[in-house]
Amino acid sequence: MNSLADHIVSGYDSDLNDLTTSLSDLGSLAEGMVADAIRALNRRDNALARSVIERDDLANSLQTKIDNDAMRILALRNPMATDLRRTIGAIRVANDLERIGDLAEGIAKRAINLNHQSPIDLTRGVERMGRQVKAQLSAALDAFLRDDTKAAVQIWMADNDIDEIYNAILRELLIYMVADPDMINASTALLFAAKNLERIGDLTSNVCEVIYFTRHGVQLIEDDAVKTMMRKPNTKKSS
Amino acid sequence: MNSLADHIVSGYDSDLNDLTTSLSDLGSLAEGMVADAIRALNRRDNALARSVIERDDLANSLQTKIDNDAMRILALRNPMATDLRRTIGAIRVANDLERIGDLAEGIAKRAINLNHQSPIDLTRGVERMGRQVKAQLSAALDAFLRDDTKAAVQIWMADNDIDEIYNAILRELLIYMVADPDMINASTALLFAAKNLERIGDLTSNVCEVIYFTRHGVQLIEDDAVKTMMRKPNTKKSS
Repeated sequence: MNSLADHIVSGYDSDLNDLTTSLSDLGSLAEGMVADAIRALNRRDNALARSVIERDDLANSLQTKIDNDAMRILALRNPMATDLRRTIGAIRVANDLERIGDLAEGIAKRAINLNHQSPIDLTRGVERMGRQVKAQLSAALDAFLRDDTKAAVQIWMADNDIDEIYNAILRELLIYMVADPDMINASTALLFAAKNLERIGDLTSNVCEVIYFTRHGVQLIEDDAVKTMMRKPNTKKSS
Repeated sequence: MNSLADHIVSGYDSDLNDLTTSLSDLGSLAEGMVADAIRALNRRDNALARSVIERDDLANSLQTKIDNDAMRILALRNPMATDLRRTIGAIRVANDLERIGDLAEGIAKRAINLNHQSPIDLTRGVERMGRQVKAQLSAALDAFLRDDTKAAVQIWMADNDIDEIYNAILRELLIYMVADPDMINASTALLFAAKNLERIGDLTSNVCEVIYFTRHGVQLIEDDAVKTMMRKPNTKKSS
């Protein structure tokens, strides 16, 4: 009986580990899409932008695979407590990462549309924001794989900075548009690229919330210690 | 034994029904927020806009309740097949509806920011788009409660029309901005309001995908019959 129980437990662990591996693959894919979308925007590299757009199909397939695997674990293993939260967390994070891929694809499309006359210094502001968003995403994926809730809370808090950068870029772009109506098309493309980056920041915060919830079984936002530290009322407010 | 089994089954059914009731409450809330946000934008009604913003907390609480209830069902009832998909579907739809609430809140904030000098005819375009998005959302919630996959597929298909209206509004707003730089601030607010409506349309499509998946156990997008009918490659592309 003991060996059968061992076998069952080890099959279960292996299922959960497979889920983590798939999530790691999807995370790397989404991260690469964000990095390349920003690079494509900055360098006006249409070939790179197109390669980001092409990768979206793979992101969708990986999400579907993770969903199916998680559903199978739920049905066959009936996980409890942390394992249940980890399995549901996988579905959530896969959804967030797939949406991050969609948003990176959106930025790549803007990069292709952006005409060559757009002001380079404004593109740089968006690129700087992009680098910060990408760094946060990488840190969140790392925290997810290491199950590091302390790091997750810190990254979650730092989303505030991204929102501030976004608002500064927005103000700057509006001033540009008013000053030079010829720049409206290019500025609008940058405006949407910045908005997509800001949403990628929000989704990164969601990943941090999943890390926290999986470990503690309560929402990060409802944690009293976090409430005290908290500078922002709700991560999902920037709509 | 029979009466015990009956009791267990009826407790289970009651749990699943409670989940549907909570989803129906959250759906009505989100629907009302979208309707009132559009109304607030159209009538420059700041009090109505503020009431939309205030309702967001309730939407968040309802989502948390649905998540917790669904997790309890997964842990204690170990649902299989359709019931498993229905439970996971509840988590997904609650997430979509909460985000729809966030986006309605975003529109309400734009409504407050929008200065009174903005061109009324452009507001009307966004309002028309809003009415269509709201109608689609109502139809999707109705299809969800009636478990009507045929309606779900139709609503999912119609998201294409919303994307077209959005693109037309975008073009029109850009022309306005170029023609009259004084309109840039107001036009940008409308641009983001329209973008939020377009995203609400996408999330409505997601709800339709959940209805389909719960019933059939395959993704709507992977269904051969749907592929044949399909005019659009992917609902989630508009990023």
